[in-house]
Amino acid sequence: MSILEGINSPADLRGLSRDELRTLAQDMRTRLIDVCSRTGGHIGAGLGVVELTIALHTVFETPKDQLVWDVGHQAYPHKLLTGRNSDMESLRQEGGLSGFLKRTESEYDTFGAGHAATAISAALGMAAGRDVLGEQFKVAAIIGDGSMGSGLAYEGLNNAGHSDRDIIVVLNDNEMSIAPNVGAMHKYLTSIQRNPLYNRLRSRIGDIVDNAPAPFAGVSTLVRKWEESVKSLLTPGVLFEELGFRYFGPIDGHDLDALLETFTAVRAMNTPRLVHVITKKGKGFPAGDHGEKWHALPPGHDPATGKQLAVSTANAAYTTVYGKGLAELGEERKDLAVITAAMPTGTGTAPFAKAFPDRFFDVGIAEGHGVTFAAGLATRGVRPIVTIYSTFLQRGYDNIIHDAALQKLPVVFAMDRAGLVGEDGETHMGLYDIAYMLTVPGMTVTAPKNGTEMLGLLRAAVEHTDGPFSLRYPRDASPDIPGAMSQIAATPYATWEVLRHGRDIAILAVGTMVNAALDAADLLAADGMDVTVVNCRYIKPYDEVTLNAILASHTHVLTVEEGTVVNGFGAFISTVIHRQAPTVRTAVHGVPDRIIYSAPRKKQLSSLGLDPAGIADRVRALHESEALAG
Amino acid sequence: MSILEGINSPADLRGLSRDELRTLAQDMRTRLIDVCSRTGGHIGAGLGVVELTIALHTVFETPKDQLVWDVGHQAYPHKLLTGRNSDMESLRQEGGLSGFLKRTESEYDTFGAGHAATAISAALGMAAGRDVLGEQFKVAAIIGDGSMGSGLAYEGLNNAGHSDRDIIVVLNDNEMSIAPNVGAMHKYLTSIQRNPLYNRLRSRIGDIVDNAPAPFAGVSTLVRKWEESVKSLLTPGVLFEELGFRYFGPIDGHDLDALLETFTAVRAMNTPRLVHVITKKGKGFPAGDHGEKWHALPPGHDPATGKQLAVSTANAAYTTVYGKGLAELGEERKDLAVITAAMPTGTGTAPFAKAFPDRFFDVGIAEGHGVTFAAGLATRGVRPIVTIYSTFLQRGYDNIIHDAALQKLPVVFAMDRAGLVGEDGETHMGLYDIAYMLTVPGMTVTAPKNGTEMLGLLRAAVEHTDGPFSLRYPRDASPDIPGAMSQIAATPYATWEVLRHGRDIAILAVGTMVNAALDAADLLAADGMDVTVVNCRYIKPYDEVTLNAILASHTHVLTVEEGTVVNGFGAFISTVIHRQAPTVRTAVHGVPDRIIYSAPRKKQLSSLGLDPAGIADRVRALHESEALAG
Repeated sequence: MSILEGINSPADLRGLSRDELRTLAQDMRTRLIDVCSRTGGHIGAGLGVVELTIALHTVFETPKDQLVWDVGHQAYPHKLLTGRNSDMESLRQEGGLSGFLKRTESEYDTFGAGHAATAISAALGMAAGRDVLGEQFKVAAIIGDGSMGSGLAYEGLNNAGHSDRDIIVVLNDNEMSIAPNVGAMHKYLTSIQRNPLYNRLRSRIGDIVDNAPAPFAGVSTLVRKWEESVKSLLTPGVLFEELGFRYFGPIDGHDLDALLETFTAVRAMNTPRLVHVITKKGKGFPAGDHGEKWHALPPGHDPATGKQLAVSTANAAYTTVYGKGLAELGEERKDLAVITAAMPTGTGTAPFAKAFPDRFFDVGIAEGHGVTFAAGLATRGVRPIVTIYSTFLQRGYDNIIHDAALQKLPVVFAMDRAGLVGEDGETHMGLYDIAYMLTVPGMTVTAPKNGTEMLGLLRAAVEHTDGPFSLRYPRDASPDIPGAMSQIAATPYATWEVLRHGRDIAILAVGTMVNAALDAADLLAADGMDVTVVNCRYIKPYDEVTLNAILASHTHVLTVEEGTVVNGFGAFISTVIHRQAPTVRTAVHGVPDRIIYSAPRKKQLSSLGLDPAGIADRVRALHESEALAG
Repeated sequence: MSILEGINSPADLRGLSRDELRTLAQDMRTRLIDVCSRTGGHIGAGLGVVELTIALHTVFETPKDQLVWDVGHQAYPHKLLTGRNSDMESLRQEGGLSGFLKRTESEYDTFGAGHAATAISAALGMAAGRDVLGEQFKVAAIIGDGSMGSGLAYEGLNNAGHSDRDIIVVLNDNEMSIAPNVGAMHKYLTSIQRNPLYNRLRSRIGDIVDNAPAPFAGVSTLVRKWEESVKSLLTPGVLFEELGFRYFGPIDGHDLDALLETFTAVRAMNTPRLVHVITKKGKGFPAGDHGEKWHALPPGHDPATGKQLAVSTANAAYTTVYGKGLAELGEERKDLAVITAAMPTGTGTAPFAKAFPDRFFDVGIAEGHGVTFAAGLATRGVRPIVTIYSTFLQRGYDNIIHDAALQKLPVVFAMDRAGLVGEDGETHMGLYDIAYMLTVPGMTVTAPKNGTEMLGLLRAAVEHTDGPFSLRYPRDASPDIPGAMSQIAATPYATWEVLRHGRDIAILAVGTMVNAALDAADLLAADGMDVTVVNCRYIKPYDEVTLNAILASHTHVLTVEEGTVVNGFGAFISTVIHRQAPTVRTAVHGVPDRIIYSAPRKKQLSSLGLDPAGIADRVRALHESEALAG
């Protein structure tokens, strides 16, 4: 039995020798690589924090002490040590372990997170709650350096540093969040790591003060008076010290002895303190690389080499199609700029970045800033395309309204991973963008039926000058194989497309649901029902002419979208329909109003009735309700 | 003619002598105090930046150079100097000058803003746009110290500091944003101001290095090698220098000579640089006070004393009622905590803060952090009540979903100034909260008809343990005079209240529209129409029993809400109605889907048909459409 197999909870760590803990670290890496080669997942961060996780759970009295892991990408080793080793094969599977932290999964998961930079705020809340109730325990937030570019992390630090509260922040610095870091904070952290002379200087300045000879006595008195200030200013973590934290580090995050000793000392203190730990992302992965490509693995990798075992033969992902078209559009139009938030690869914008580095802006994990920055660009006649996953753009909701829409600035929002995101789970679902974009005054809201139309809408977006324009596309392969951008015309503004002419019942479908609706229509045709299918690619403004024609010739309308059924396209267009044609019966179909958990995307779609069979069922139900009513 | 009257544009400043500029500053203060005593408005910030504004417009080549004023509270003097002096009487009036900046109002208003901390991001976007297009001009963001606690400002600084781009940030530090500042950044700025020895030490350390005698030669060499580092570390603005900015300051913001000389030197440089200017908010106001109470004035003040001329005899504002009830509830329940974002007075939470300082958390202008912090509190069994204006809570949308709702944590959201906000204008409208809160899974969404019901819903909110709960109330007086909190029971969960039993047509009204609907019913009764009025205080989950009863006994339903008509309560409940009772005709009434500009709140309500006459008209239209259809 390996040492890892004997660990049922962190309490079991506390009796182990240093050598046993080091062996445990080896066991954990072997286990992680083995599991992730089959399940896929965010392995890089986990491999980097094996020793850190062991040290934290050994020193802190978990679960009473609260460890708050930011994001949860880092949390696989934490899962191994907190009673979930034997369940790891179910990682990211439906009904299995979450790929992130989850309060309902374990008492050791104190705060769930899929979005970055929440940990300090949450930990400060826990510390404040402890103090309100007069309880006794420690709280530590563990946050990556990439998250330190997020305003949320800064707001948390700024508040904690002011509070004098008993709280610990562990900065897990792997010089790499998902993409290489951007921003001054990153430069700053790098400078700390690379300047050991800071520490030498710090000790020598004391000598100068203590030994200053007579001619410098006056100076020396002044200096001595300010010795403490000087010392703190020469600390490597001066920036954190200025924000009210006592700084410890940098510490080698793979040196168990140093970690155990530091945390033991730090745990005993009781003011805001920050421990800066340097780790290597992907440490121990056989391929030896710890770059962006090991951030996450899809399932089906050779654990020995990290090579993908099976190559997908599906059509290109929407992300890829988008990235290619975007780069081609950048060639056509020299006034385009692209903004992404720490995900040039994830959003497919890397080809544009490579071709046009002066017009590409990776703002780091700072979505709100990215949107306002884009609005600033737009005031100067540059056409910004903000490319951010639907779920992360939620962080820019106020900026979208306040900075882009109220000023009617032509900012384009390309929202990748809109809709159901499969195994990435509830924190990453892109279910709200249709609903929230619809509320924004003057926002054009669109969704394409395939990759070609996505590029047509992208062209329409950059040609649109009257206010902001949004475009959503799923975490999926494009159903078609689009040609070159130069061959693709702008999708005419505010138009729909009637793809199948039937009678009685019309399906108004959005985005991914267009092809599913066409397939549903085929299923219904076998039952003798002849339905109309409309591609509602412009959600707002909608196509009034086509809608009126549909309402004049149909008695029933079913709307279908891959987004929350609460106040999405269906609710929006139903309001119009009931105003214009009150006798037309409507039904609204979409993602139900509840939290949707991890499962394969196809299964999510089918279980929610967002596949051809499910849509056909909804049409039949609508038809039958009419038969009954009639 | 005063010097001010001779200034038609900033170009006119550039020929004036220093003495004339100083006289101009006097003219401007006199003018501001006179105007604001009649129009009301945010006078404090403006009085503080008179010299700063003169210096900026004198040195920078506006309008070609871009001055980006954060928030716009500071921008009244800017308006005086940019061709709008003679229009100042129309400040904050319908059709008059905006109380904030507005791109459509002047070419000198480069970026509109009502929410804080957008200026650095926007300015960086402008600078990037300039560089993309190969243009030549300067960009300066002017931002207050209170905004520096916002994550958005940090994200902007972090990106700008990394960029090496030609951009200037002017930090207008008045030690007071709206309420006294919180957070470590504030402490830090204060320490810069109060420690002149930093500067003395900085010069003397050079002497030590240069004059070190033989015994210290080794040390001296080391020190000399790091002299530059040491110097930069001893700079007062080390935190900003660490973020990549060259720091200048602190400078007396009322010393015109110092300002002019500094800006002339700084303008000529071309890397990220920050000028730290110390000003007195409200400087020159006769009462001499520059505290929170001079942040903004309502109209009708004696310009000589600042005293309010007319005392309102209306009922207490919702804000006041809320604040009183909250403090009483805090006495009852020791597990309640209150979170606000830099507005203890504005949100009415000051009495709670005074009574229970250990359970009150002013997080500064950091709404996203405030929400996540509250979620952290909730994990520990403390019941947090996040009290933030509707418009500002937009900044916490992702935190609401990701940190509160997905974890089903019982965080209460009390949204003040929900709906139309009168003269505060488009940036402060609280029109989106019903729509966005409805999309959040597991969120209880409510709105009271009066102050008593607000307190009943507040009690229900803190008794609710199954997920987050939101409550909205307007910028208005409560129509009733509520009693003590101890006498007010929790409003039963998910219930509506039928206030008037009619036939055929039912009005489903939300919040402020309940009393308006009752009055509309009286108007309609005079026409012989007998309508039902329902108080839909729980928007989600709705009252199924009452709704079914209404649907069973009515042929028509009109929904009315003070929020965007796109996907608010009306769209939400119409979807339900059409599923359950497809023959019932519905119409949806609310704020139209366009930008709503400044005007008195009553006038906004009436012009949008959200008053009794307007609602009655809608009912008649619905009735007539039926008559025609029938």
